This record gives sequence, C-alpha cells and structure tokens, in this order.
Amino acid sequence: MADKRIGVLLSGCGVYDGAEIHEATLTLYFLDRASAHVIVMAPNIPQHHVINHLTGEVTNETRNVLVESARIARGQIRDMATVTADDLDAIILPGGFGAAKNLSSVAFDGPNARVDPEVSRLLLAMVAAKKPIGALCIAPALLSKVLSGKGVTLTIGTDEGVAGAIEKMGNRHQPSNADAIVIDSANNIVTTAAYMCAASIGAAGEGIEKLVNQIMKMV
Amino acid sequence: MADKRIGVLLSGCGVYDGAEIHEATLTLYFLDRASAHVIVMAPNIPQHHVINHLTGEVTNETRNVLVESARIARGQIRDMATVTADDLDAIILPGGFGAAKNLSSVAFDGPNARVDPEVSRLLLAMVAAKKPIGALCIAPALLSKVLSGKGVTLTIGTDEGVAGAIEKMGNRHQPSNADAIVIDSANNIVTTAAYMCAASIGAAGEGIEKLVNQIMKMV
Repeated sequence: MADKRIGVLLSGCGVYDGAEIHEATLTLYFLDRASAHVIVMAPNIPQHHVINHLTGEVTNETRNVLVESARIARGQIRDMATVTADDLDAIILPGGFGAAKNLSSVAFDGPNARVDPEVSRLLLAMVAAKKPIGALCIAPALLSKVLSGKGVTLTIGTDEGVAGAIEKMGNRHQPSNADAIVIDSANNIVTTAAYMCAASIGAAGEGIEKLVNQIMKMV
Repeated sequence: MADKRIGVLLSGCGVYDGAEIHEATLTLYFLDRASAHVIVMAPNIPQHHVINHLTGEVTNETRNVLVESARIARGQIRDMATVTADDLDAIILPGGFGAAKNLSSVAFDGPNARVDPEVSRLLLAMVAAKKPIGALCIAPALLSKVLSGKGVTLTIGTDEGVAGAIEKMGNRHQPSNADAIVIDSANNIVTTAAYMCAASIGAAGEGIEKLVNQIMKMV
C-alpha cells in the first residue's frame, strides 16, 4: 500500500488552539502501520489565538499554524498551498479546536462559519475527484460547511449543538460513540467522534484505527 | 491494572526543543490500553530555547516546559514538584531533545551535564524504592547521568557518541534497534531507542509498546 498517498491536514499543535495531538499522532501511527505514504500539511496562516493548555487562558502570543503543526510532523510537512488533489489518493483531518478556529470559524460562527480558502479548495477538489475524505472529532463540522447542502452523512459523536449545526448546513448527522465510524459510501466520507466523546486515548484510538483502515480500503 | 499508577515525565512539546510528540502520545496510548492509571507531569521551568520545527531555526520566543507539556496531556498534568515516589508505581520518560536540553544539559555537556533538581530527586527516589523506570530515545542518557557510576545497562540505539557518553558516566550501553527493548532486571530499568534510530512512527511504536508492557509486568 506504499503507493497510496494519504494527506493528513493539521491545524496547529494542541487540542484547545490547534490539532488534537493524540488524534493526529494516532492517525499517523495507524497510517504507517497500514504502509501508507503520508503527506502531512497545514495552511501557512496565523492561529486564531494561543491557549495556555495548563490554565485554559488565552495568552498574548502569536503562533503560525504551519510552524506549530510542524512539531507533530517532526518537520516533515508541506504548506498546503503547494498540495493539489492530484498529489493525494485520500485525505484525513484530525480534530482539535484548530479545525474549528484556524481552518474555519465553526467554533464561533456555527453554520455561518467561514472556511480557509486553501482548505476549501483542496477538500472540494478531493470531492470532485471522488477521492475519500476522513474527518475526526470536530473536523466533520468543518467538512460539513465545505459541503453545505450536499446531504452528506457525518458524525461528531453525540453533541446536540454541533449535530444541529451540521443539519442546518444541509447535511445529515448520525450519532455515534468514539469506538465507531460512520461511513457515507456514496460520498466516500468516513468520520469518527474521537475526543468529541472519547473518555480516554484508547477509546479515541479504536475509532481512529477503524477510520484509517476504512480509508485505506477505499483508495 | 487500573490500580497501577504510572508516571509519564514530559519535557515540552516537540522533538527539537521538548518531548517527542509521537513517543509521548504512544506511551500514553499503550498505557491506556494496558489499563494503567497515568499521571502526566513536567517541571515548571523555562525551555532551554524554542525551535521553529519548520525551519530548524532558534526563535526569540520563550516557552515554559510545564505549559507546553500540557498540550500533549490535554491539560491533565501536574507540576512534578508536587509528585513523590509514593504517588507512583513506575515512571516512563519519553524522549525528544527536551530530555537533553530542558530536563538536563546532556545535549550540550554530555557526561558533564547538569540535571534539573526535581528530575534528579524523583528518579533517585524511584530507584531507592526499587520502582521500575522506563526511558525512550535520548532519555536514557539523562537517566544515565542521574545514575552515574551505578553500572546500569541502557540503550539509546546505535549512536556511538551518546553510547560513549553513557559508558563515561559509569554505565553500560547495549546497542539495539527501535523494535527492541533492553531490560536491566537487577535495576528495574527498561529502555528503547525509539526515534534515536526508528525510520518511522510504526517502528518506534513497536519498541514503545514492548517497553510499556514490560513496565506493566514489573509493577
């Protein structure tokens, strides 16, 4: 499967202001175990803000999404502006608030969110090419905004507020637990709730492993 | 095994200036799979420096080891000054340059390194209580400094420079690959090379999974 090129789109480094580290790392781990060729990427934009993960407070720092994402990627990362759908056989979006604060404004604006133009461009190109998309945790809400009105089926677990926002965007929400995945076969989309409802890293890992293996089956 | 309390000592968040994110996350993952009760901790000290992980350059930022480690711990972390050997049945140190730049100065001073006083205190107390210690990647070099002259057996993979420093500290280095662990049964120490020689996250994971399971057997 080393000829299968799987993109992993990061949004920073840390659950409260970037990519959720466990979700991103376990995605990379299960992709490597499945012998995928992994292309890690992030947009070269400022973070919405920086959160002190010890206290939960907003700091006065400024950080860059691509630079911080490079921590998770050990420096092996591409500015997503240089990546096209032709470079990829599938793409996976880990969660963390970065998906809802940096890649989009879903955390603040719900159904009226804006989406980073590079993120929209690449995801719409993947859909147009009928290539699989996986999304974890809150990232399905971002994907829902990109695919507004398409009637795709997604899960973000059991949070009624976010589920309602997805329905308002013209898509379908299917409740699920962290150990499960939701497959929209018609649209080649696989989602899992991960830390939207997982009580532990092991529980999140169950769904992430299934999602990665399902994406590898689809490519 | 949920009654087994395993400490995980972090050193920041990012391979070049902190804890190696994949090693730390996979340690937490395999500990959770083994039903351990995990206590994540870090010292409340400034980082030696901040590295831009995209370019490899030192930045002019200042960051705190405990605050950045909290990103990997999702905020569930303790200042290690509040942790004693009585709180733990074993402790594991993931690698990353943070172990050699923040928890100690091994990266700069080799056999003449200083070690953070809280790190020395807790590791020496664990040894005195005959409780198991696991160390990954470059962290065994820090452990070697704390246990100078004790004749413990450790691995950091195959790097001859670091292996020589460990021997100069009065300990024994056993070469190994990332999929293996080295067990010093007499001293309850388990080490694995992880990214000191792993070519991929999956390869690092093989050794980390074995190390975690060995530590769980020993407690």
